[in-house]
Amino acid sequence: MQGDNCDPDRPAHPGIFPAGEAGQSDHQPAELSVDFPVSVVLPAGGTGERTGLQTPKQFCSFLGRPLISYTIQAFERVSWIQSIVVVVAKENLDLMTDIIQRFQHRKVRVVPGGSTRHRSICNGVLALGEQEEGERLPTDRPKVVIIHDAVRPFVEEAFLYKIAMAAKEQGAAGAIRPLVSTVIATTSEGYLDHSLERAKYRASEMPQGFTYDVIYQAYQRCTESDFEFGTECLHLALQYCGTNAKLIEGPPTLWKVTYKRDLAAAESIIKETLSRSACVITGGSAQAVTLADAFQKAAGALDMELDVVPDLMGDNGRYLSKEWNFIQVSVNHSCLSEVESLLMDLEAANRALLHPLVVIWVHLSCSDELSISRKMPEPAAIMDMASSAKLQNILVYAIQLHQSKDTERWERSVLRVAEITSALIRERSPALVGQLLQA
Amino acid sequence: MQGDNCDPDRPAHPGIFPAGEAGQSDHQPAELSVDFPVSVVLPAGGTGERTGLQTPKQFCSFLGRPLISYTIQAFERVSWIQSIVVVVAKENLDLMTDIIQRFQHRKVRVVPGGSTRHRSICNGVLALGEQEEGERLPTDRPKVVIIHDAVRPFVEEAFLYKIAMAAKEQGAAGAIRPLVSTVIATTSEGYLDHSLERAKYRASEMPQGFTYDVIYQAYQRCTESDFEFGTECLHLALQYCGTNAKLIEGPPTLWKVTYKRDLAAAESIIKETLSRSACVITGGSAQAVTLADAFQKAAGALDMELDVVPDLMGDNGRYLSKEWNFIQVSVNHSCLSEVESLLMDLEAANRALLHPLVVIWVHLSCSDELSISRKMPEPAAIMDMASSAKLQNILVYAIQLHQSKDTERWERSVLRVAEITSALIRERSPALVGQLLQA
Repeated sequence: MQGDNCDPDRPAHPGIFPAGEAGQSDHQPAELSVDFPVSVVLPAGGTGERTGLQTPKQFCSFLGRPLISYTIQAFERVSWIQSIVVVVAKENLDLMTDIIQRFQHRKVRVVPGGSTRHRSICNGVLALGEQEEGERLPTDRPKVVIIHDAVRPFVEEAFLYKIAMAAKEQGAAGAIRPLVSTVIATTSEGYLDHSLERAKYRASEMPQGFTYDVIYQAYQRCTESDFEFGTECLHLALQYCGTNAKLIEGPPTLWKVTYKRDLAAAESIIKETLSRSACVITGGSAQAVTLADAFQKAAGALDMELDVVPDLMGDNGRYLSKEWNFIQVSVNHSCLSEVESLLMDLEAANRALLHPLVVIWVHLSCSDELSISRKMPEPAAIMDMASSAKLQNILVYAIQLHQSKDTERWERSVLRVAEITSALIRERSPALVGQLLQA
Repeated sequence: MQGDNCDPDRPAHPGIFPAGEAGQSDHQPAELSVDFPVSVVLPAGGTGERTGLQTPKQFCSFLGRPLISYTIQAFERVSWIQSIVVVVAKENLDLMTDIIQRFQHRKVRVVPGGSTRHRSICNGVLALGEQEEGERLPTDRPKVVIIHDAVRPFVEEAFLYKIAMAAKEQGAAGAIRPLVSTVIATTSEGYLDHSLERAKYRASEMPQGFTYDVIYQAYQRCTESDFEFGTECLHLALQYCGTNAKLIEGPPTLWKVTYKRDLAAAESIIKETLSRSACVITGGSAQAVTLADAFQKAAGALDMELDVVPDLMGDNGRYLSKEWNFIQVSVNHSCLSEVESLLMDLEAANRALLHPLVVIWVHLSCSDELSISRKMPEPAAIMDMASSAKLQNILVYAIQLHQSKDTERWERSVLRVAEITSALIRERSPALVGQLLQA
């Protein structure tokens, strides 16, 4: 696929990084402050029949983590969202509780769903008004409830803000998108009746926002038939509360994982987002710095951002808490102590909790041809280290290259290191960990 | 992403393999015979603004080949389709002509598009009725014209057949799909007016089919305003010829590459389709056969079909003309002659014309620990061979494993060969060619 910097589907700041990261404050301009309580209902009761998969799509894993965990994260990192109610089918309650524990989600409650989408959302709304089991204080009933789909993981704070503000002002607000296909009405015999003028209609998407009162009243007043056959909350607000929802054009990032092809698209977006930047640790040696600089130039052409640091001491420790991948350069050493120490730092920072992290050991041999073999790192030792790191969700690969006085040859090697590094980081293949590759 | 055998988005027999392949007859049940001439108009004038890419999406490359070439292939392999007219913007005429030559497409003519979608399709329809430049015989004007999008590459013969037959009988026929989102009408101030009952409406998709007379007359009679603002051919047939199109529910494979995320999804489907099967060549040695059998078992668990053959002589030559990847097993040999000979066969069969082909050399060392290093294949030689094969669109990788009398250790190695092989074939990474990996 041809690369391109501009990607309207990919969130600028996806919710796939741990909340509370050092970088988060950059993502949250000061003006997005919300001075009223907002909570979220996330219906996740779908059976995923359209993907053709056994597993409902919200529980399908991407890089070892279920889709719904990415969606929860997208809300958790928004400071002004106070709580998230996830509504799941009874048979998935344990699975969901397990996901919340495993990925250390906070702000989240799980409630059992109903037999239809509206019944599930209604359960979620009611749960927001109830006192949680074991709690002494009355729940702070939200002013605004945002309803979203578990299978739209790439929603962004800026858009949630628009929905929350419009919901508070108008009583209801919903995301819309242009129609991709013409919509047609069919006769009962399966012939074309008429086609709709595309410009007059929009696709109704998620998130939607409501004041608590509007959505609560709408569910109190609606009929059994609405509960059974309806799907559109905006429609209930209009019909039962007389509230005309404000419609807000959303970005393409609101797309919904519907078909199996969407799983591949989501995985690709997640991988791409995790592969934008790497931190090169030189250990301070002049040869390593020279390599890192050349490497940095080559990597720029491959659309990857590289920062070069001597070590992760002091202020550089910030890289441990951000979304960086790591490249450790060693000169002549055949021992793995530098990588081992990096792995220990990463484990201590719990950096691989939410997604696998890539560490690449680049071994630069500066000695003459004959002595190289003696200084070569031991493949079995690298494999052992990588196997144990893999259990911690850290993917370790190694690349060896030889210093060369022949400029052309050296540049070719550096370019190859950059290409291999970029491929390893982007593909994140668990099957290839521990391999020693040649540049 | 969790694997699954059932994939409604992925065509059973995608148009990504050369027409005239040995396997093709399996894909074309006898009942799909069409006894009237059918041609195709493929409008490909889009600018791709929704992908956010510089390159219009029909020209975006997947594994080195533009999307439109995959779509053309999907029609070319259908024996009863006589010709394909591709309509492209004037500035892309040369590019399109180049694509047709490079990927050896037959049956295809390129005509310049108009300023709108309807004008472009109309140009294509008119071209079908014209005598081609330099042709002596009058063109066999088709009975039925199928109109499709260049950016829906996964359309299948069985569905084209349904459209062609219905078009001949009813004058017009079109693919429909259920609506993914609720469709809503908006007020001019951006508020909800009403929502449509989802069950009564469908998304109109492609392909659509028309008798030549209906589509020709529709374009003769329609207004400048239709040409300028309309998009729906079925609508013109209804309005200007009184033809109510037969609507046929299409499979999810009809999806349209619209957003950048769809490029990732398309690439993933193409890669998955190319990665289903590999042919293991043992050279006939008992140790290689034992490895291949164990390997076959392990690969089955990884959802990949493996056929084991001693060589590609005689009847086994059929593997060269089908969509297989290749795994050459060598026992103890440190020389590359077997792989080199395989590469020559593949080049002679022009097997990598349409997509990159994976060849993996598995080197099994059966000797004792000390003598291994002397029998190890030379990394530089493998890299050189792989670099030159890459120019032919063949991706060569190597895996080394050691025979072990320790059953558990041996089984672990075989499993690792299977995992590495599967990853290399699925990821098809050009950056990793020529690497010697350890199992």
